[in-house]
Amino acid sequence: MHVNGQPHPYTPDLTLHQLLRELNINPERVAIAVNDDFYAGGQAPDRQLDERDVVEIVKVIGGG
Amino acid sequence: MHVNGQPHPYTPDLTLHQLLRELNINPERVAIAVNDDFYAGGQAPDRQLDERDVVEIVKVIGGG
Repeated sequence: MHVNGQPHPYTPDLTLHQLLRELNINPERVAIAVNDDFYAGGQAPDRQLDERDVVEIVKVIGGG
Repeated sequence: MHVNGQPHPYTPDLTLHQLLRELNINPERVAIAVNDDFYAGGQAPDRQLDERDVVEIVKVIGGG
């Protein structure tokens, strides 16, 4: 699978919240995209991940 | 409409690329979410926006 553009080891039954714990990221503080699904800050469900998933851990940036 | 959590004036026929120009943001350098659709960096289409759309301009943050 890929996380933020980098290949990342996939472990069977990996879920989104487990992945965030692995990366020691607090789900409350970031927005997440899994493929083209977007979960705003703190709303990412503990979704079952798949070997081909592309995960982006994103932060909202200001824009004027 | 809302942009990054703030109310933002909606102008009829506003498109995503026009909004980015308004905010002088380079579409190539950011990822965008419109409601729960996610467009990775530089892939946001010039999508017609709607008054009820929620747009998040996001940056990928490292995590691994």
